[in-house]
Amino acid sequence: MEGVGGGKRRGDDGAEAAPRWRFSRPSSQGGPLAAAGLTSIRAVVNRVNSSVDAAAAGGPRPVLRLGNGDPTASACYRTAPAAEDAVVDALRSGAHNGYSLTVGVLSARRAIAEYLSRDLPYELSANDIYLTSGCVQAIEVMISVLAQPGSNILLPKPGFPLYESRTTFSNLEVRHFDLIPERGWEVDLEGVQAIADENTVAIVVINPSNPCGSVYSYDHLAKIAETARKLGLLIIADEVYDHLAFGNNPFIPIGVFGKTVPVITLGSISKRWLVPGWRLGWIATCDPNGILKEAKVNQSIENYINISTDPATFVQGAIPQIIANTKEDYFNKILDQLRNAADLCYDKIKDIKGITCPHKPEGSMFVMVKLDLSYLDGFHDDMDFCCRLAKEESVIVLPGSALGLKNWVRITFAIDIPSLVDAFERIKSFCQRHGKLET
Amino acid sequence: MEGVGGGKRRGDDGAEAAPRWRFSRPSSQGGPLAAAGLTSIRAVVNRVNSSVDAAAAGGPRPVLRLGNGDPTASACYRTAPAAEDAVVDALRSGAHNGYSLTVGVLSARRAIAEYLSRDLPYELSANDIYLTSGCVQAIEVMISVLAQPGSNILLPKPGFPLYESRTTFSNLEVRHFDLIPERGWEVDLEGVQAIADENTVAIVVINPSNPCGSVYSYDHLAKIAETARKLGLLIIADEVYDHLAFGNNPFIPIGVFGKTVPVITLGSISKRWLVPGWRLGWIATCDPNGILKEAKVNQSIENYINISTDPATFVQGAIPQIIANTKEDYFNKILDQLRNAADLCYDKIKDIKGITCPHKPEGSMFVMVKLDLSYLDGFHDDMDFCCRLAKEESVIVLPGSALGLKNWVRITFAIDIPSLVDAFERIKSFCQRHGKLET
Repeated sequence: MEGVGGGKRRGDDGAEAAPRWRFSRPSSQGGPLAAAGLTSIRAVVNRVNSSVDAAAAGGPRPVLRLGNGDPTASACYRTAPAAEDAVVDALRSGAHNGYSLTVGVLSARRAIAEYLSRDLPYELSANDIYLTSGCVQAIEVMISVLAQPGSNILLPKPGFPLYESRTTFSNLEVRHFDLIPERGWEVDLEGVQAIADENTVAIVVINPSNPCGSVYSYDHLAKIAETARKLGLLIIADEVYDHLAFGNNPFIPIGVFGKTVPVITLGSISKRWLVPGWRLGWIATCDPNGILKEAKVNQSIENYINISTDPATFVQGAIPQIIANTKEDYFNKILDQLRNAADLCYDKIKDIKGITCPHKPEGSMFVMVKLDLSYLDGFHDDMDFCCRLAKEESVIVLPGSALGLKNWVRITFAIDIPSLVDAFERIKSFCQRHGKLET
Repeated sequence: MEGVGGGKRRGDDGAEAAPRWRFSRPSSQGGPLAAAGLTSIRAVVNRVNSSVDAAAAGGPRPVLRLGNGDPTASACYRTAPAAEDAVVDALRSGAHNGYSLTVGVLSARRAIAEYLSRDLPYELSANDIYLTSGCVQAIEVMISVLAQPGSNILLPKPGFPLYESRTTFSNLEVRHFDLIPERGWEVDLEGVQAIADENTVAIVVINPSNPCGSVYSYDHLAKIAETARKLGLLIIADEVYDHLAFGNNPFIPIGVFGKTVPVITLGSISKRWLVPGWRLGWIATCDPNGILKEAKVNQSIENYINISTDPATFVQGAIPQIIANTKEDYFNKILDQLRNAADLCYDKIKDIKGITCPHKPEGSMFVMVKLDLSYLDGFHDDMDFCCRLAKEESVIVLPGSALGLKNWVRITFAIDIPSLVDAFERIKSFCQRHGKLET
């Protein structure tokens, strides 16, 4: 029996029973939010991590974490002293304790515009830059801005699952195009043309690639830009791993082709400066022809940013000094470390039966490795492989199914060399133990 | 003429014309995003601010900014040295440069649980706490979690417009209940019962009040809790101004009634520690009966947080020391300053014909002031009043229409006393100049 206008119920004895709570809908058990939240890398890594044998975790053999894009646990991947100094100075000044403008502190936007313009054939201005709380928020903003009923967006496979999570949450349809391992994980441009239609609004290009470790050539970037122009698509350039290129191809921002096609570049200090926890990213409109402004895309970005949180103001305030004072030596040291780790990785994988690497990594901090389940005995799939590797060897790697590529795994090699050597010894021993006997 | 599968067009002369860009939809000119972005306090303050006479802004008379809830521009509202030290130590340790858990660093969640439990008749645990990038993100998370097709939420009028922006963006219907100025801005509980229905999921209670400067008594909080229970509603307790109470009523968290009704408390170090730019907030489930967990609300919060950005890890890492090391003297000094400013404010307003204050502020840092447009000559409304005040006197206050209350204005009194005195002299002179001649 319900009271008038309310949800109060009485039990059979007339005593007051618990109210009927109006919010008790199974919102987390279904719907886009549940689907979106459960596909994150962190959720998958947590699942793999929970397989680590509790007794082993406390034992003498450390858990080796090659699952995340966060090398900061290794002392050799500490950020530049100049960057720490800049943040301390900004904090100690007392001038950056208040709210910033929603689009970001002007001096920081100007410094980032100049920094990005070094690699472009035209100049960005502070008005092209919107500061975000890491690249995560930059992705959130762009997906929210582009989501319109009936629209779709093209995402790479394999890719970065936050795009899938955010598109699911925003009801933006996703269409996947392949990256081709045999061609250095280049974009399958014919596939792109086959899946795009008049409701396709954008294509996401991640370069240097997470998860593939590839770095695209000028020629390939030019072809992507031409294809996007032909199809009338905006390019969302995820360049959070910008400048982390240590192979033959130098890092080239696809914004170089901004006169061919409008490009919105997402970036951050997280990776190049090894500070993912500082949460400072940006959205840059690389659009010398003013097409995005005319289409009111800039206004939409500003509208969304007006109702969203910001990066810490004193980290914003430190940006001009972080960029100006970080020495080239520091960047070179990190690139040398990553190159050595990638080389070691590639060599070790060649030496392990059951896993193969089709393309030597030359950028970012990842390598994609294919499982040979015809050799590895009794594994259902990549998740099974990763959970058992975690349980038996205390080595965490990411199942490729979290990235859209089943029966592959992603290995982060940005970890100190002794740990990396140790990890591959354990993986080798694991694969040998579970390999089918040769006949 | 269009190319196959693409948007490329050719002009009459056969030369390549500009592509038909697929993203060129007027997304920013209509729709929830545009509506949401334009109602933010910062957008309205910017509009008022743009009325400041450019020549005057560069002149000897400073622009006095009483529009935002950010007192950090005044040297007397600088944060505690212990808080700055804690952040510097966390940064210099190098241990907090990486990603945090999505729900937040455990030591920080534990410290906040203990901190909030001091004022509750039961204990919160770290599992009740989710760290957010300021209270802004806490609001975003909760509105996103509660938004379900057909549902509605009850918001106070006047209120904090970010709730309206976020509900608009999430397609969650809003129903407004009144705060009653003559009763110390208490909630109109009869009004609440009249507008709630079976699709109402929650009621938002902001205490200490932004924008009203009121602090609710234990009895009034108890009545709100009983009403919410009767209606089966979750209480969203916006307590971002917690402990900033300097009148007769002490600050009491409504979570005190968590056994009557589940409460989700939104908080932050932004206001009590005077660091809105540090972007560290929280969501706390005050729910000793476990109703929210059973209804999977906790899981929904975690799902949303898994696909969202985080506060800076080193600020999270500093939280235990910030809480432990900030001296009571510091909090008392700030309360004394706010009390003095509120008293001055109230006295000055009594002395100005054309504006009235129905309730002396006793908390937060705001006072709501009613415009007497029967006396003030030739003003259309509060926006007109604020823009002309900005233009003629270089004083910025917030139009009440941005908060849902037309022909009122919100004044922030958390500014150094000489500036506050100066501001009221200018407002008095302005009102006198524009007052109708007595007949």
